[in-house]
Amino acid sequence: MKTNAGRFFEDYRLGEVIVHAVPRTVKMGERALYHALYPARHALYSSDQFAQDCGLPFSPLDDLIAFHVVFGKTVPDVSLNAVANLGYAEGRWLAPVWPGDTLRSESTVIGLKQNSNGQSGVVYVRTRGLNQHDLPVLEYVRWVMVKKRDFAVAAPEAVVPDLAKSVAAADLVIPAGLDFSRYNFALAGEPHRLGDYAVGEVIDHVDGVTIEEAEHMLATRLWQNTAKVHFDATNRPDGRRLIYGGHVISLARALSFNGLANAQMLVALNGGAHANPCFAGDTVRAWSEVLDRAETSAPGVGAIRLRLVATKGAAGALRGADGKYLPEVLLDLDYWALMPV
Amino acid sequence: MKTNAGRFFEDYRLGEVIVHAVPRTVKMGERALYHALYPARHALYSSDQFAQDCGLPFSPLDDLIAFHVVFGKTVPDVSLNAVANLGYAEGRWLAPVWPGDTLRSESTVIGLKQNSNGQSGVVYVRTRGLNQHDLPVLEYVRWVMVKKRDFAVAAPEAVVPDLAKSVAAADLVIPAGLDFSRYNFALAGEPHRLGDYAVGEVIDHVDGVTIEEAEHMLATRLWQNTAKVHFDATNRPDGRRLIYGGHVISLARALSFNGLANAQMLVALNGGAHANPCFAGDTVRAWSEVLDRAETSAPGVGAIRLRLVATKGAAGALRGADGKYLPEVLLDLDYWALMPV
Amino acid sequence: MKTNAGRFFEDYRLGEVIVHAVPRTVKMGERALYHALYPARHALYSSDQFAQDCGLPFSPLDDLIAFHVVFGKTVPDVSLNAVANLGYAEGRWLAPVWPGDTLRSESTVIGLKQNSNGQSGVVYVRTRGLNQHDLPVLEYVRWVMVKKRDFAVAAPEAVVPDLAKSVAAADLVIPAGLDFSRYNFALAGEPHRLGDYAVGEVIDHVDGVTIEEAEHMLATRLWQNTAKVHFDATNRPDGRRLIYGGHVISLARALSFNGLANAQMLVALNGGAHANPCFAGDTVRAWSEVLDRAETSAPGVGAIRLRLVATKGAAGALRGADGKYLPEVLLDLDYWALMPV
Repeated sequence: MKTNAGRFFEDYRLGEVIVHAVPRTVKMGERALYHALYPARHALYSSDQFAQDCGLPFSPLDDLIAFHVVFGKTVPDVSLNAVANLGYAEGRWLAPVWPGDTLRSESTVIGLKQNSNGQSGVVYVRTRGLNQHDLPVLEYVRWVMVKKRDFAVAAPEAVVPDLAKSVAAADLVIPAGLDFSRYNFALAGEPHRLGDYAVGEVIDHVDGVTIEEAEHMLATRLWQNTAKVHFDATNRPDGRRLIYGGHVISLARALSFNGLANAQMLVALNGGAHANPCFAGDTVRAWSEVLDRAETSAPGVGAIRLRLVATKGAAGALRGADGKYLPEVLLDLDYWALMPV
Repeated sequence: MKTNAGRFFEDYRLGEVIVHAVPRTVKMGERALYHALYPARHALYSSDQFAQDCGLPFSPLDDLIAFHVVFGKTVPDVSLNAVANLGYAEGRWLAPVWPGDTLRSESTVIGLKQNSNGQSGVVYVRTRGLNQHDLPVLEYVRWVMVKKRDFAVAAPEAVVPDLAKSVAAADLVIPAGLDFSRYNFALAGEPHRLGDYAVGEVIDHVDGVTIEEAEHMLATRLWQNTAKVHFDATNRPDGRRLIYGGHVISLARALSFNGLANAQMLVALNGGAHANPCFAGDTVRAWSEVLDRAETSAPGVGAIRLRLVATKGAAGALRGADGKYLPEVLLDLDYWALMPV
Repeated sequence: MKTNAGRFFEDYRLGEVIVHAVPRTVKMGERALYHALYPARHALYSSDQFAQDCGLPFSPLDDLIAFHVVFGKTVPDVSLNAVANLGYAEGRWLAPVWPGDTLRSESTVIGLKQNSNGQSGVVYVRTRGLNQHDLPVLEYVRWVMVKKRDFAVAAPEAVVPDLAKSVAAADLVIPAGLDFSRYNFALAGEPHRLGDYAVGEVIDHVDGVTIEEAEHMLATRLWQNTAKVHFDATNRPDGRRLIYGGHVISLARALSFNGLANAQMLVALNGGAHANPCFAGDTVRAWSEVLDRAETSAPGVGAIRLRLVATKGAAGALRGADGKYLPEVLLDLDYWALMPV
């Protein structure tokens, strides 16, 4: 059997390091496609000149391109037999990805816990994305529920890692040279600086995008994500293709430009839930809630912690009276971004 | 309210200069996407070597990429609340856009005229696209009908600019170095030179393309055009997404290769009307009428003035007995292009 | 009549050389689109670093990008009036295509045979793709059935070229510098080397992809292939757009990563049949059969000859009891690829 059937729960060992296959060189073509696939307008990722005015050599690739490429490589080894993508934690972007960089991924198994039904278990991995200089550009923890191949195999000792509720502001890595002291608000698109956002403030990002099958498949393939459910209409009994959760992340982040145009660079992923599945034909909207603000050591650069929620249908509440996500909620993401103070 | 609700008629002031947000660096990725989105085959925009044989350092980005990028930036400030896109005039391409250039847009309000119903008005802007050297690459006048937010606001003094019916041949800007004296007609795809086209001649471009939702949305997003009607199927009562008029321009121009393969570079946009809306599922065809011919100062380079008409359904007549565009007419565009003499 | 109506059978002359129009510079944008359009994961075409570890200066463009670009240019001259694409033979990739290369195509008519009905005939062409240094990067023979414009024109003398059943291993051209002696199987994605594949072995590539209209049109346009049937839904009585056979080739080759991740570079196209038409909505799967193995002169580099079959529906048999392709078979391709020994 030469094809990859994916790993099952009993195939993971605590402490094991998985080298994921297919390194990828990313350049301006990936950036152009990102702009075609998502209504991305953050100026620092759109204009070399704007990025240079912010102290960078030129415009880096969108932080979510880095995320998707690093994540995509892990799919054949981590989530091909996953029943559910349960959560993210302790995610940090550690260095910008420049056009021409080559990315690869490695994951360490940091937790294992078999479910009480004995048919599946939860696998926790800490994944790192590395560039061609073997320097990390991104790391995050993700945990997924994975089926067992053989229910008779004994459960491993349960180890659940102790994960931070959010990345501390002091642990955010600011890209070398970043300087917002000459930040051009007119070209960025909005006048609001960090001080203009109050903790607890909620912003409805107004715009909506109706998703087509071709779009989410182009995107998901671009990240070399091979999960069958995204591409094969015969895979589910209802004949629908499940949209990659990362597609919704990028869509919501791009929509958040309208109200958060100055939340330029992503620096941490504190947590996230894909609350409900998304399908072609859904019209995705987004809203954000300001969770925290912080200073950084870089000139003019502050950090804003945001909850980004994507919905199908009108923006509104997040959870029902039972504490569960409402059925129209697609995504609940908690992240830090850099913003001029 | 941190989000952009767009400007209303009473928000414009005569003479006001609007700096549009989100500069954009365009490179080969945008060119590749342009070739995927439109059946573009003009050799000068396809081959570095062909462009070099025409005296250019390498192949510039398609003139319509420049147009769409410059136009897209104006949408949040000019046409978010537009009821109708009424016309174009005095458009000129002033310099080629090279891969790596960063484009931004500025518009000056040159005319304002409230409608007699007091609920909307016409705004005339002259838009300039500038590159990273602050040199203009494109300018054009556009007028749109914009809603009033508050009908009670008094009408401004009506000022309607005096616009040229067409750009005079003497005012066309020929790219520096352009030389068609060694033009390779075999590689360009057709043997017809300027002298082979007679004023009044009509060319049916034969081919048709059926449009998909994913395609026009990819294109429109690529130009960072944010108009809701193109993306949000819930925006109109009929659940249809209105296709960006510029998508039809690019499609028709690309189709016009078949019969006008040597109309290489666009140098002026004399006028244009988006006669009827275009929707996914429409099969677009195109025909052209030769309106004028002119000499230029560049070696071997002539100019041809063309009417480019896009239709859904068979190519045919333009206007009915009542003088109105026939319902199958999508676009009526008047432009100058450069062609070997 | 300035538009191209395409050539008919009686327009071809034996020995005639046709210079195809519209040279094309291909760069990283085309590569990014290739990764978005197909689930392509072969590491040598994904990572500059991996390619460098294999002795190449950087990652070449996918061999099928070269094929599609060269093929696309021939369509207006060879297959615009083709009734059927009958076969391929003696195809060889002669040099890698690097980002920035400019490709053009030339075809020589090497065979002509009118059909007994007097209404059409078979045209055999040997097509060469050339780069900007006038060096060949690809050559192949293709034969198509072409309609006659005027049935009364006398048949030419029938000449059917004597074509090799397959390219001999000794005639395969190995890219200069290629060296698999330090090949990284972990990064490539699978441990299987040439010696692990037995002649006669069949590999089911497991995954399936459901095709959308927008995807195959984006791809086919990207290769500047102008055949009406791919784009114009009004062209066939059933309102369906016929998918470019090359789209199925690329899809099947990309799917074959799962089981053939180390079949890195294509070096010969021995033959191929587009057995049945493919339409949007079809879910494409693929299987391969090992036909032969050979050594090469390059360090660590072997060659594997493969039959690649694409199907709509489950992978299975190829031909029925009558010797004809089963209706679910889309493609039967015979090629040589390079693989570490």
